[in-house]
Amino acid sequence: MKLVLVRHGESEWNRENRFTGWTDVELSRAGREEAARAGDSLRDLGYSFDVCHTSYLRRAVHTLDIMLDRLDGVWLPVMKTWRLNERHYGALQGLGKSETAKEYGEAQVKIWRRSYDVQPPALSPGDSRSPGLDARYARGPIQARPLTESLKDTVARAVPYFEQSIKPDIVSGKSVLVVAHGNSLRALVKHIDGVSDTDIAQMNIPTGIPLVYEFDSHFNVARAFYLGDESLIAQKMEAVANQGSAK
Amino acid sequence: MKLVLVRHGESEWNRENRFTGWTDVELSRAGREEAARAGDSLRDLGYSFDVCHTSYLRRAVHTLDIMLDRLDGVWLPVMKTWRLNERHYGALQGLGKSETAKEYGEAQVKIWRRSYDVQPPALSPGDSRSPGLDARYARGPIQARPLTESLKDTVARAVPYFEQSIKPDIVSGKSVLVVAHGNSLRALVKHIDGVSDTDIAQMNIPTGIPLVYEFDSHFNVARAFYLGDESLIAQKMEAVANQGSAK
Repeated sequence: MKLVLVRHGESEWNRENRFTGWTDVELSRAGREEAARAGDSLRDLGYSFDVCHTSYLRRAVHTLDIMLDRLDGVWLPVMKTWRLNERHYGALQGLGKSETAKEYGEAQVKIWRRSYDVQPPALSPGDSRSPGLDARYARGPIQARPLTESLKDTVARAVPYFEQSIKPDIVSGKSVLVVAHGNSLRALVKHIDGVSDTDIAQMNIPTGIPLVYEFDSHFNVARAFYLGDESLIAQKMEAVANQGSAK
Repeated sequence: MKLVLVRHGESEWNRENRFTGWTDVELSRAGREEAARAGDSLRDLGYSFDVCHTSYLRRAVHTLDIMLDRLDGVWLPVMKTWRLNERHYGALQGLGKSETAKEYGEAQVKIWRRSYDVQPPALSPGDSRSPGLDARYARGPIQARPLTESLKDTVARAVPYFEQSIKPDIVSGKSVLVVAHGNSLRALVKHIDGVSDTDIAQMNIPTGIPLVYEFDSHFNVARAFYLGDESLIAQKMEAVANQGSAK
Protein backbone atom coordinates (compact mmCIF):
# COMPACT_ATOMS: atom_id res chain seq x y z
CA MET A 1 0.00 0.00 0.00
CA LYS A 2 1.93 2.90 -1.34
CA LEU A 3 1.40 6.60 -2.03
CA VAL A 4 3.99 8.81 -3.70
CA LEU A 5 3.61 12.59 -3.64
CA VAL A 6 5.60 14.80 -6.02
CA ARG A 7 5.62 18.59 -6.16
CA HIS A 8 5.84 19.85 -9.75
CA GLY A 9 9.19 21.03 -11.05
CA GLU A 10 10.22 24.69 -11.32
CA SER A 11 7.80 26.83 -13.32
CA GLU A 12 8.53 30.00 -15.28
CA TRP A 13 7.17 32.03 -12.38
CA ASN A 14 8.96 30.07 -9.64
CA ARG A 15 12.10 31.12 -11.44
CA GLU A 16 10.95 34.73 -11.55
CA ASN A 17 9.93 34.41 -7.89
CA ARG A 18 6.35 35.56 -8.46
CA PHE A 19 3.18 34.50 -6.64
CA THR A 20 1.60 31.96 -8.96
CA GLY A 21 -1.38 30.29 -7.27
CA TRP A 22 -3.92 29.33 -9.91
CA THR A 23 -2.13 31.17 -12.75
CA ASP A 24 -1.54 28.46 -15.34
CA VAL A 25 2.16 28.97 -16.03
CA GLU A 26 4.35 26.43 -17.82
CA LEU A 27 7.32 24.46 -16.46
CA SER A 28 10.74 25.97 -17.05
CA ARG A 29 13.42 23.88 -18.76
CA ALA A 30 14.86 23.18 -15.29
CA GLY A 31 11.38 22.09 -14.17
CA ARG A 32 11.09 19.62 -17.02
CA GLU A 33 14.49 18.21 -16.07
CA GLU A 34 13.40 17.86 -12.42
CA ALA A 35 10.32 15.94 -13.59
CA ALA A 36 12.44 13.61 -15.74
CA ARG A 37 14.80 12.94 -12.81
CA ALA A 38 11.86 12.22 -10.50
CA GLY A 39 10.51 9.70 -13.01
CA ASP A 40 13.96 8.14 -13.53
CA SER A 41 14.60 7.75 -9.80
CA LEU A 42 11.25 6.00 -9.26
CA ARG A 43 11.83 3.75 -12.28
CA ASP A 44 15.39 2.87 -11.22
CA LEU A 45 14.09 1.79 -7.81
CA GLY A 46 11.42 -0.40 -9.38
CA TYR A 47 8.38 1.72 -8.54
CA SER A 48 5.27 1.24 -10.63
CA PHE A 49 1.80 2.70 -10.22
CA ASP A 50 -1.82 1.80 -10.81
CA VAL A 51 -3.41 5.25 -10.89
CA CYS A 52 -2.29 8.89 -10.89
CA HIS A 53 -3.86 12.14 -9.72
CA THR A 54 -2.97 15.69 -10.56
CA SER A 55 -4.41 19.22 -10.64
CA TYR A 56 -5.95 21.28 -13.46
CA LEU A 57 -2.71 23.26 -13.84
CA ARG A 58 -0.29 22.59 -16.66
CA ARG A 59 2.88 22.70 -14.55
CA ALA A 60 1.54 19.71 -12.56
CA VAL A 61 -0.02 17.88 -15.54
CA HIS A 62 3.19 18.22 -17.54
CA THR A 63 5.37 17.11 -14.61
CA LEU A 64 3.21 13.98 -14.43
CA ASP A 65 3.32 13.48 -18.23
CA ILE A 66 7.12 13.62 -18.20
CA MET A 67 7.33 11.27 -15.21
CA LEU A 68 4.97 8.76 -16.86
CA ASP A 69 7.10 8.83 -19.98
CA ARG A 70 10.15 7.88 -17.92
CA LEU A 71 8.18 5.28 -15.95
CA ASP A 72 6.87 3.68 -19.18
CA GLY A 73 3.40 4.44 -17.85
CA VAL A 74 1.79 6.82 -20.36
CA TRP A 75 -1.11 4.35 -20.48
CA LEU A 76 -1.94 4.73 -16.75
CA PRO A 77 -5.24 6.34 -15.71
CA VAL A 78 -4.77 9.99 -14.73
CA MET A 79 -7.43 11.83 -12.71
CA LYS A 80 -7.36 15.64 -12.76
CA THR A 81 -9.06 17.86 -10.20
CA TRP A 82 -9.16 21.53 -9.20
CA ARG A 83 -9.07 20.24 -5.60
CA LEU A 84 -5.35 19.50 -5.99
CA ASN A 85 -4.62 22.96 -7.46
CA GLU A 86 -2.12 25.21 -5.72
CA ARG A 87 -3.51 27.47 -2.99
CA HIS A 88 -5.26 30.45 -4.63
CA TYR A 89 -3.12 33.50 -3.89
CA GLY A 90 -5.83 36.10 -4.54
CA ALA A 91 -4.72 39.53 -5.73
CA LEU A 92 -1.06 38.66 -5.09
CA GLN A 93 -1.06 36.36 -8.14
CA GLY A 94 1.38 37.73 -10.67
CA LEU A 95 3.24 39.97 -8.21
CA GLY A 96 6.93 39.40 -7.54
CA LYS A 97 7.63 38.04 -4.07
CA SER A 98 10.48 40.49 -3.55
CA GLU A 99 8.45 43.54 -4.66
CA THR A 100 5.54 42.42 -2.50
CA ALA A 101 7.95 42.17 0.43
CA LYS A 102 9.25 45.69 -0.26
CA GLU A 103 5.73 47.10 -0.54
CA TYR A 104 3.95 45.32 2.31
CA GLY A 105 6.98 44.41 4.45
CA GLU A 106 8.58 41.03 4.88
CA ALA A 107 6.51 40.39 8.01
CA GLN A 108 3.21 40.73 6.12
CA VAL A 109 4.42 38.53 3.27
CA LYS A 110 5.56 35.94 5.77
CA ILE A 111 2.07 36.01 7.33
CA TRP A 112 0.45 35.48 3.93
CA ARG A 113 2.87 32.72 3.03
CA ARG A 114 3.27 30.97 6.36
CA SER A 115 0.17 31.51 8.46
CA TYR A 116 -2.46 28.80 8.48
CA ASP A 117 -5.69 30.75 8.22
CA VAL A 118 -4.90 34.23 6.84
CA GLN A 119 -6.08 34.88 3.29
CA PRO A 120 -4.18 37.28 1.00
CA PRO A 121 -6.24 40.18 -0.46
CA ALA A 122 -9.02 38.70 -2.66
CA LEU A 123 -9.46 39.15 -6.40
CA SER A 124 -12.60 41.05 -7.37
CA PRO A 125 -15.11 38.66 -9.03
CA GLY A 126 -14.83 40.61 -12.31
CA ASP A 127 -11.02 40.41 -12.37
CA SER A 128 -9.79 38.75 -15.56
CA ARG A 129 -7.84 36.33 -13.34
CA SER A 130 -11.05 35.20 -11.59
CA PRO A 131 -11.70 31.41 -11.81
CA GLY A 132 -15.34 32.19 -12.65
CA LEU A 133 -14.16 33.43 -16.06
CA ASP A 134 -12.18 30.26 -16.84
CA ALA A 135 -14.03 27.38 -18.57
CA ARG A 136 -12.32 24.75 -16.46
CA TYR A 137 -13.76 26.15 -13.22
CA ALA A 138 -16.94 27.84 -14.48
CA ARG A 139 -18.58 24.45 -15.01
CA GLY A 140 -17.53 23.10 -11.59
CA PRO A 141 -19.11 23.66 -8.17
CA ILE A 142 -19.04 27.12 -6.56
CA GLN A 143 -16.13 26.08 -4.29
CA ALA A 144 -14.06 25.64 -7.47
CA ARG A 145 -14.06 29.43 -7.92
CA PRO A 146 -12.21 30.93 -4.93
CA LEU A 147 -11.01 34.55 -5.08
CA THR A 148 -8.36 33.93 -2.42
CA GLU A 149 -7.41 31.10 -0.07
CA SER A 150 -5.62 30.50 3.20
CA LEU A 151 -3.77 27.20 3.64
CA LYS A 152 -6.74 26.20 5.79
CA ASP A 153 -9.06 26.76 2.80
CA THR A 154 -6.77 24.61 0.65
CA VAL A 155 -6.88 21.82 3.25
CA ALA A 156 -10.68 22.06 3.32
CA ARG A 157 -11.01 21.32 -0.41
CA ALA A 158 -8.06 18.92 -0.89
CA VAL A 159 -8.75 16.53 2.01
CA PRO A 160 -12.25 15.45 0.85
CA TYR A 161 -10.70 14.50 -2.51
CA PHE A 162 -8.05 12.43 -0.74
CA GLU A 163 -10.68 10.66 1.34
CA GLN A 164 -13.07 9.99 -1.54
CA SER A 165 -10.83 9.47 -4.56
CA ILE A 166 -7.31 8.56 -3.41
CA LYS A 167 -7.53 6.65 -0.12
CA PRO A 168 -9.97 3.94 -1.35
CA ASP A 169 -7.48 2.93 -4.07
CA ILE A 170 -4.60 2.75 -1.60
CA VAL A 171 -6.70 0.70 0.82
CA SER A 172 -7.56 -1.69 -2.01
CA GLY A 173 -3.85 -2.30 -2.55
CA LYS A 174 -3.12 0.02 -5.45
CA SER A 175 0.01 2.13 -5.78
CA VAL A 176 -0.95 5.77 -6.23
CA LEU A 177 1.07 8.68 -7.63
CA VAL A 178 -0.01 12.27 -6.89
CA VAL A 179 1.67 15.20 -8.66
CA ALA A 180 0.52 18.52 -7.27
CA HIS A 181 1.65 21.78 -5.65
CA GLY A 182 3.43 23.06 -2.54
CA ASN A 183 0.24 23.87 -0.65
CA SER A 184 -2.10 21.14 -1.89
CA LEU A 185 0.60 18.61 -0.95
CA ARG A 186 1.01 20.27 2.46
CA ALA A 187 -2.74 19.78 2.86
CA LEU A 188 -2.38 16.05 2.20
CA VAL A 189 0.69 15.68 4.43
CA LYS A 190 -1.07 17.54 7.26
CA HIS A 191 -4.03 15.19 6.94
CA ILE A 192 -2.05 11.95 6.62
CA ASP A 193 0.54 12.70 9.31
CA GLY A 194 -1.72 14.70 11.63
CA VAL A 195 0.57 17.75 11.56
CA SER A 196 -0.56 20.75 13.65
CA ASP A 197 -1.79 23.99 12.05
CA THR A 198 1.38 25.77 13.21
CA ASP A 199 3.86 23.12 12.13
CA ILE A 200 2.40 22.58 8.65
CA ALA A 201 2.90 26.25 7.78
CA GLN A 202 6.64 25.84 8.47
CA MET A 203 7.04 22.68 6.43
CA ASN A 204 8.68 23.05 3.01
CA ILE A 205 8.13 20.36 0.41
CA PRO A 206 10.95 20.36 -2.16
CA THR A 207 10.13 20.34 -5.90
CA GLY A 208 10.58 17.16 -7.92
CA ILE A 209 11.58 14.89 -5.01
CA PRO A 210 9.24 11.90 -4.56
CA LEU A 211 7.83 11.68 -1.02
CA VAL A 212 6.97 8.02 -0.42
CA TYR A 213 4.35 6.84 2.09
CA GLU A 214 4.02 3.16 2.94
CA PHE A 215 0.93 2.14 4.91
CA ASP A 216 0.18 -0.90 7.05
CA SER A 217 -3.07 -2.83 6.69
CA HIS A 218 -4.84 -0.40 9.08
CA PHE A 219 -3.81 2.58 6.94
CA ASN A 220 -1.27 3.72 9.53
CA VAL A 221 1.87 5.25 8.08
CA ALA A 222 4.53 2.52 8.30
CA ARG A 223 7.26 4.59 6.67
CA ALA A 224 7.56 7.99 5.00
CA PHE A 225 10.69 9.24 3.26
CA TYR A 226 11.99 11.37 0.43
CA LEU A 227 13.64 9.51 -2.45
CA GLY A 228 16.94 11.16 -3.20
CA ASP A 229 20.15 12.72 -2.05
CA GLU A 230 19.71 14.27 1.43
CA SER A 231 21.86 17.34 0.90
CA LEU A 232 20.01 18.17 -2.34
CA ILE A 233 16.68 17.84 -0.53
CA ALA A 234 17.83 20.13 2.32
CA GLN A 235 19.07 22.68 -0.19
CA LYS A 236 15.76 22.64 -2.08
CA MET A 237 13.74 23.07 1.13
CA GLU A 238 15.91 26.03 2.09
CA ALA A 239 15.37 27.63 -1.33
CA VAL A 240 11.58 27.45 -0.93
CA ALA A 241 11.72 28.83 2.61
CA ASN A 242 13.70 31.88 1.45
CA GLN A 243 11.50 32.88 -1.47
CA GLY A 244 9.57 35.47 0.54
CA SER A 245 12.54 37.63 1.52
CA ALA A 246 13.13 41.03 -0.04
CA LYS A 247 16.80 40.41 -0.85
CA MET B 1 -23.45 17.16 -30.25
CA LYS B 2 -20.00 16.73 -31.64
CA LEU B 3 -17.39 14.02 -32.00
CA VAL B 4 -13.92 14.62 -33.43
CA LEU B 5 -11.71 11.68 -34.43
CA VAL B 6 -7.98 12.14 -34.98
CA ARG B 7 -5.49 9.53 -36.13
CA HIS B 8 -2.14 9.92 -34.36
CA GLY B 9 0.70 11.62 -36.20
CA GLU B 10 3.53 9.76 -37.92
CA SER B 11 5.42 7.36 -35.64
CA GLU B 12 9.03 6.24 -35.89
CA TRP B 13 7.82 3.00 -37.48
CA ASN B 14 5.34 4.63 -39.87
CA ARG B 15 8.36 6.45 -41.21
CA GLU B 16 10.30 3.20 -41.49
CA ASN B 17 7.21 1.61 -43.07
CA ARG B 18 7.06 -1.29 -40.58
CA PHE B 19 4.00 -3.11 -39.22
CA THR B 20 3.45 -1.55 -35.81
CA GLY B 21 0.20 -2.80 -34.31
CA TRP B 22 0.50 -2.86 -30.53
CA THR B 23 4.25 -2.13 -30.54
CA ASP B 24 4.55 0.98 -28.40
CA VAL B 25 6.66 3.19 -30.68
CA GLU B 26 7.07 6.93 -30.23
CA LEU B 27 5.94 9.76 -32.52
CA SER B 28 8.51 11.03 -34.99
CA ARG B 29 9.30 14.74 -35.08
CA ALA B 30 6.97 15.03 -38.09
CA GLY B 31 4.28 13.25 -36.06
CA ARG B 32 4.61 15.75 -33.21
CA GLU B 33 4.26 18.57 -35.73
CA GLU B 34 1.12 16.96 -37.22
CA ALA B 35 -0.36 16.76 -33.72
CA ALA B 36 0.42 20.42 -33.06
CA ARG B 37 -1.20 21.44 -36.37
CA ALA B 38 -4.30 19.35 -35.58
CA GLY B 39 -4.61 21.12 -32.22
CA ASP B 40 -4.02 24.54 -33.78
CA SER B 41 -6.62 24.03 -36.51
CA LEU B 42 -9.27 22.98 -33.97
CA ARG B 43 -8.40 25.92 -31.70
CA ASP B 44 -8.42 28.43 -34.56
CA LEU B 45 -11.93 27.29 -35.52
CA GLY B 46 -13.16 27.64 -31.95
CA TYR B 47 -13.49 23.95 -31.08
CA SER B 48 -13.44 23.01 -27.42
CA PHE B 49 -14.03 19.65 -25.75
CA ASP B 50 -15.46 18.20 -22.58
CA VAL B 51 -13.81 14.80 -22.53
CA CYS B 52 -11.12 12.93 -24.48
CA HIS B 53 -10.44 9.26 -25.18
CA THR B 54 -7.30 7.58 -26.39
CA SER B 55 -5.53 4.22 -26.48
CA TYR B 56 -2.84 2.70 -24.26
CA LEU B 57 -0.19 3.44 -26.89
CA ARG B 58 2.20 6.37 -26.54
CA ARG B 59 1.93 7.58 -30.13
CA ALA B 60 -1.78 8.23 -29.53
CA VAL B 61 -1.43 9.49 -25.93
CA HIS B 62 1.30 11.91 -26.98
CA THR B 63 -0.66 13.13 -30.00
CA LEU B 64 -3.52 13.93 -27.62
CA ASP B 65 -1.15 15.57 -25.09
CA ILE B 66 0.26 17.86 -27.79
CA MET B 67 -3.22 18.70 -29.11
CA LEU B 68 -4.50 19.52 -25.60
CA ASP B 69 -1.53 21.81 -25.08
CA ARG B 70 -2.48 23.74 -28.22
CA LEU B 71 -6.18 23.70 -27.28
CA ASP B 72 -5.41 25.06 -23.78
CA GLY B 73 -7.08 21.90 -22.50
CA VAL B 74 -4.42 20.02 -20.52
CA TRP B 75 -6.92 19.97 -17.63
CA LEU B 76 -9.54 17.98 -19.60
CA PRO B 77 -10.42 14.44 -18.50
CA VAL B 78 -8.64 11.83 -20.63
CA MET B 79 -9.81 8.20 -20.68
CA LYS B 80 -7.36 5.57 -21.92
CA THR B 81 -8.33 2.11 -23.09
CA TRP B 82 -6.75 -0.87 -24.87
CA ARG B 83 -10.03 -1.08 -26.85
CA LEU B 84 -8.90 1.92 -28.93
CA ASN B 85 -5.45 0.41 -29.60
CA GLU B 86 -4.35 -0.16 -33.17
CA ARG B 87 -5.31 -3.52 -34.70
CA HIS B 88 -2.92 -6.20 -33.39
CA TYR B 89 -0.75 -7.24 -36.32
CA GLY B 90 0.39 -10.57 -34.86
CA ALA B 91 3.75 -11.94 -35.97
CA LEU B 92 4.05 -9.22 -38.63
CA GLN B 93 4.71 -6.60 -35.92
CA GLY B 94 8.20 -5.22 -36.42
CA LEU B 95 8.57 -6.44 -40.01
CA GLY B 96 9.05 -3.94 -42.82
CA LYS B 97 6.05 -3.64 -45.12
CA SER B 98 8.23 -3.74 -48.22
CA GLU B 99 10.21 -6.82 -47.06
CA THR B 100 6.97 -8.55 -46.09
CA ALA B 101 5.63 -7.81 -49.57
CA LYS B 102 8.78 -9.23 -51.14
CA GLU B 103 8.62 -12.35 -48.98
CA TYR B 104 4.91 -13.14 -49.02
CA GLY B 105 3.92 -11.29 -52.20
CA GLU B 106 2.03 -8.02 -52.50
CA ALA B 107 -1.26 -9.89 -52.88
CA GLN B 108 -0.89 -11.61 -49.49
CA VAL B 109 0.12 -8.35 -47.78
CA LYS B 110 -2.84 -6.64 -49.37
CA ILE B 111 -5.09 -9.38 -47.97
CA TRP B 112 -3.65 -8.91 -44.47
CA ARG B 113 -3.92 -5.14 -44.69
CA ARG B 114 -7.18 -4.73 -46.56
CA SER B 115 -9.39 -7.75 -45.93
CA TYR B 116 -12.03 -7.48 -43.25
CA ASP B 117 -11.77 -10.82 -41.48
CA VAL B 118 -8.35 -12.34 -42.25
CA GLN B 119 -5.89 -12.39 -39.34
CA PRO B 120 -2.14 -12.15 -39.96
CA PRO B 121 -0.03 -15.04 -38.51
CA ALA B 122 -0.42 -15.03 -34.70
CA LEU B 123 2.29 -14.41 -32.13
CA SER B 124 3.05 -17.41 -29.95
CA PRO B 125 1.82 -16.77 -26.36
CA GLY B 126 5.40 -16.94 -25.06
CA ASP B 127 6.70 -14.38 -27.59
CA SER B 128 8.28 -11.40 -25.84
CA ARG B 129 5.88 -9.17 -27.85
CA SER B 130 2.82 -10.96 -26.40
CA PRO B 131 0.37 -8.61 -24.60
CA GLY B 132 0.15 -11.18 -21.78
CA LEU B 133 3.70 -10.24 -20.81
CA ASP B 134 2.96 -6.48 -20.65
CA ALA B 135 1.70 -5.05 -17.33
CA ARG B 136 -0.84 -2.80 -19.03
CA TYR B 137 -2.69 -5.75 -20.58
CA ALA B 138 -1.88 -8.53 -18.11
CA ARG B 139 -4.22 -7.00 -15.54
CA GLY B 140 -7.07 -6.51 -18.00
CA PRO B 141 -9.64 -8.99 -19.32
CA ILE B 142 -8.55 -11.90 -21.52
CA GLN B 143 -9.75 -10.07 -24.68
CA ALA B 144 -7.09 -7.42 -23.90
CA ARG B 145 -4.40 -9.96 -24.84
CA PRO B 146 -4.87 -10.82 -28.53
CA LEU B 147 -2.06 -12.57 -30.42
CA THR B 148 -3.35 -11.32 -33.79
CA GLU B 149 -6.42 -9.50 -35.04
CA SER B 150 -8.43 -8.99 -38.20
CA LEU B 151 -10.16 -5.65 -38.71
CA LYS B 152 -13.34 -7.50 -37.71
CA ASP B 153 -11.73 -8.38 -34.36
CA THR B 154 -10.79 -4.73 -33.87
CA VAL B 155 -14.37 -3.67 -34.59
CA ALA B 156 -15.61 -6.25 -32.06
CA ARG B 157 -13.62 -4.72 -29.19
CA ALA B 158 -13.77 -1.02 -30.16
CA VAL B 159 -17.52 -0.69 -30.79
CA PRO B 160 -18.63 -1.75 -27.27
CA TYR B 161 -16.35 0.96 -25.87
CA PHE B 162 -17.94 3.52 -28.19
CA GLU B 163 -21.43 2.45 -27.13
CA GLN B 164 -20.69 2.35 -23.40
CA SER B 165 -18.16 5.10 -22.83
CA ILE B 166 -18.28 7.59 -25.72
CA LYS B 167 -21.83 7.74 -27.08
CA PRO B 168 -23.54 8.51 -23.73
CA ASP B 169 -21.41 11.67 -23.37
CA ILE B 170 -22.22 12.82 -26.91
CA VAL B 171 -25.92 12.15 -26.35
CA SER B 172 -25.79 14.22 -23.14
CA GLY B 173 -24.49 17.16 -25.19
CA LYS B 174 -20.75 16.92 -24.55
CA SER B 175 -18.09 17.50 -27.20
CA VAL B 176 -15.84 14.47 -27.40
CA LEU B 177 -12.32 14.14 -28.84
CA VAL B 178 -10.95 10.69 -29.71
CA VAL B 179 -7.29 10.24 -30.67
CA ALA B 180 -6.56 6.71 -31.85
CA HIS B 181 -5.24 4.61 -34.72
CA GLY B 182 -5.94 3.84 -38.36
CA ASN B 183 -7.88 0.64 -37.66
CA SER B 184 -9.56 1.49 -34.36
CA LEU B 185 -10.85 4.67 -36.02
CA ARG B 186 -12.02 2.67 -39.03
CA ALA B 187 -13.93 0.52 -36.55
CA LEU B 188 -15.70 3.60 -35.16
CA VAL B 189 -16.38 5.07 -38.61
CA LYS B 190 -17.79 1.73 -39.81
CA HIS B 191 -20.11 1.62 -36.80
CA ILE B 192 -21.21 5.28 -36.92
CA ASP B 193 -21.68 5.50 -40.69
CA GLY B 194 -22.83 1.92 -41.29
CA VAL B 195 -20.03 1.24 -43.79
CA SER B 196 -20.00 -2.28 -45.31
CA ASP B 197 -17.29 -4.83 -44.48
CA THR B 198 -15.86 -4.47 -47.99
CA ASP B 199 -15.90 -0.68 -48.16
CA ILE B 200 -14.36 -0.09 -44.73
CA ALA B 201 -11.26 -2.07 -45.69
CA GLN B 202 -10.69 0.33 -48.59
CA MET B 203 -11.12 3.49 -46.53
CA ASN B 204 -7.94 5.34 -45.60
CA ILE B 205 -8.03 7.74 -42.67
CA PRO B 206 -5.25 10.34 -42.97
CA THR B 207 -2.98 11.05 -39.98
CA GLY B 208 -3.42 14.23 -37.94
CA ILE B 209 -6.51 15.52 -39.79
CA PRO B 210 -9.53 16.03 -37.50
CA LEU B 211 -12.61 14.15 -38.73
CA VAL B 212 -15.64 16.01 -37.37
CA TYR B 213 -19.04 14.39 -36.80
CA GLU B 214 -22.06 16.49 -35.94
CA PHE B 215 -25.17 14.63 -34.76
CA ASP B 216 -28.81 15.61 -34.63
CA SER B 217 -30.92 15.05 -31.54
CA HIS B 218 -31.67 11.45 -32.63
CA PHE B 219 -27.96 10.69 -32.93
CA ASN B 220 -28.13 10.63 -36.70
CA VAL B 221 -25.06 12.01 -38.45
CA ALA B 222 -26.00 15.53 -39.56
CA ARG B 223 -22.60 16.32 -41.06
CA ALA B 224 -19.20 14.65 -41.25
CA PHE B 225 -16.11 16.29 -42.71
CA TYR B 226 -12.36 16.51 -42.47
CA LEU B 227 -10.94 19.79 -41.16
CA GLY B 228 -8.22 20.96 -43.47
CA ASP B 229 -6.90 21.49 -46.95
CA GLU B 230 -8.48 19.00 -49.38
CA SER B 231 -5.40 18.36 -51.52
CA LEU B 232 -3.31 17.66 -48.41
CA ILE B 233 -5.94 15.21 -47.17
CA ALA B 234 -6.07 13.38 -50.53
CA GLN B 235 -2.28 13.17 -50.60
CA LYS B 236 -2.18 11.72 -47.07
CA MET B 237 -4.85 9.10 -47.88
CA GLU B 238 -2.85 8.07 -50.96
CA ALA B 239 0.32 7.69 -48.88
CA VAL B 240 -1.42 5.32 -46.46
CA ALA B 241 -2.96 3.28 -49.31
CA ASN B 242 0.46 2.74 -50.91
CA GLN B 243 2.35 1.57 -47.81
CA GLY B 244 1.91 -2.11 -48.61
CA SER B 245 3.62 -2.06 -51.99
CA ALA B 246 7.05 -3.58 -52.51
CA LYS B 247 8.47 -0.55 -54.32
